[in-house]
Amino acid sequence: MTETTDKSFQEIMKEKAAAIDEMLSAYIYHGQAVPDTITEAMRYSLLAGGKRLRPILMQETYRMFGGSGTQFIEPFMAAMEMIHTYSLVHDDLPAMDNDEYRRGRKTTWAVYGDAMGILAGDALLNAAYETALEVLGVCETPEQYRRVGWALKVLAHNAGIHGMVGGQVADIEAEQQTEPLTAEQIDYIHRNKTGALIEASMTIGAILAGASTEQGTEITRCALDIGIAFQIQDDILDVVGDSAELGKPVGSDAANGKQTYVTIHGLEHSRAEVERLSNEAIAILQKLPGDHSFLESLVRYLIDRRS
Amino acid sequence: MTETTDKSFQEIMKEKAAAIDEMLSAYIYHGQAVPDTITEAMRYSLLAGGKRLRPILMQETYRMFGGSGTQFIEPFMAAMEMIHTYSLVHDDLPAMDNDEYRRGRKTTWAVYGDAMGILAGDALLNAAYETALEVLGVCETPEQYRRVGWALKVLAHNAGIHGMVGGQVADIEAEQQTEPLTAEQIDYIHRNKTGALIEASMTIGAILAGASTEQGTEITRCALDIGIAFQIQDDILDVVGDSAELGKPVGSDAANGKQTYVTIHGLEHSRAEVERLSNEAIAILQKLPGDHSFLESLVRYLIDRRS
Repeated sequence: MTETTDKSFQEIMKEKAAAIDEMLSAYIYHGQAVPDTITEAMRYSLLAGGKRLRPILMQETYRMFGGSGTQFIEPFMAAMEMIHTYSLVHDDLPAMDNDEYRRGRKTTWAVYGDAMGILAGDALLNAAYETALEVLGVCETPEQYRRVGWALKVLAHNAGIHGMVGGQVADIEAEQQTEPLTAEQIDYIHRNKTGALIEASMTIGAILAGASTEQGTEITRCALDIGIAFQIQDDILDVVGDSAELGKPVGSDAANGKQTYVTIHGLEHSRAEVERLSNEAIAILQKLPGDHSFLESLVRYLIDRRS
Repeated sequence: MTETTDKSFQEIMKEKAAAIDEMLSAYIYHGQAVPDTITEAMRYSLLAGGKRLRPILMQETYRMFGGSGTQFIEPFMAAMEMIHTYSLVHDDLPAMDNDEYRRGRKTTWAVYGDAMGILAGDALLNAAYETALEVLGVCETPEQYRRVGWALKVLAHNAGIHGMVGGQVADIEAEQQTEPLTAEQIDYIHRNKTGALIEASMTIGAILAGASTEQGTEITRCALDIGIAFQIQDDILDVVGDSAELGKPVGSDAANGKQTYVTIHGLEHSRAEVERLSNEAIAILQKLPGDHSFLESLVRYLIDRRS
């Protein structure tokens, strides 16, 4: 990929992220009959920027399978980003990773205090379900109810102990472990802590667009490859990245004595694994119907990214 | 109410609570492909006993409006108790109320650590939605989908910032406030922190049984009376109760300098208000169809309770 096309793809990603920021802002607003502090803390964390990777993957998968319009997909995109955000807000808490900065600015608890950090996370998780459940209100046919019910089930399953929370627990336990992590442990953490929401994002896009069960299974496999490649790339960037581009210090994993895919498998094998998983994901996309050119570019962009 | 009928009603409540304990236990079990620690911490908090007031109110309202069977109501009963439990787990955290004991035993964070306390609460909240969403899977007719969709919406609305979380935020802010709370503030906290889930419990029971919109509105009013009376009674018991019966020290609110309904309105007015709200709740029940004798006894039991 040349520098020019890479730049224009980055521009497209930024535009998409900006559109998602605007959409998210409409879901949590002041002036509701609730204490101002909580909407402030929720907006602070939810509108902190970021790639908006999960909702973009959801939207593009929906489009690839022929989905159109916004009423079915947008609330799920917002819900997914709220769940991702709540997990970051709770991960940053003093009792968890004790991080005062994220993406170059203070974390939610560092601004609003520990108690409000806990409650803002809880509120975002609740708001995610409240938002996604709105879609039941636009269903008219049994088939629409079936699809939306299935998508809600995937959301809840992958966010909870069988998915993201399971991965967070394993990650916390791994940090307390003195002996080296096994390859299975790091794989479990990646699959769940990072992979589960990316998997759910693409699977929900496919379900809502009316993909077949077989196509859903293929897209889930593709998404898991993308999720794990994404996390390994994160581990690589923590070793070889540029701290200005990353918005956080390089080498923070090593400084914290954190075991990562790179410390276990080495840099060379890690890079080869990102390449292998990405190629596999692209191969799956190419066998599926619809225009998958954007998703292919996105997978390549995730490998080449420097932040 | 005589001592004898009071005792037998208490026995019935205990039997109902025991049946709910058994039902809850089946929802969160070991041996799923998740870290043991998290299912252990979830079970520790969820199966700690307690009155199971919210699921009992839901079930009895469902029956009063002619609902039968378990497949529609039980997952919602379990979900409600999971949400109530997660809120207690997070309320007890060092960064929130910093309570090491509840119902005479160590709180979840005091046993499993702060980080696991946060994650166990998150996991219970997620599990609540995952559990309630199961009911969409048994829907066949558009009317069933409509009712379940509406019940899910009430659950999410009352659990979040427009309900319980809003009340928790106002409560945390009230604790940091040096000037006396206004009557409006304490009312907002009671309506939301305690009232919202009790309101949702009875409203969901009515919706799932097919009550009309008007009946739903009446039962919501009745539930809010019950919820506020219940919380004022709690505040009264903290002053005049017996610590052995309560399972926690009497006078803990005063010792913590906590402002309650009693500190603001005095004991006499507080008792009169519990009486007034309970009578109003019973009057609403008596105007509704169906057998409401159990719910009436329950309201009387809540006024007379000593723990």
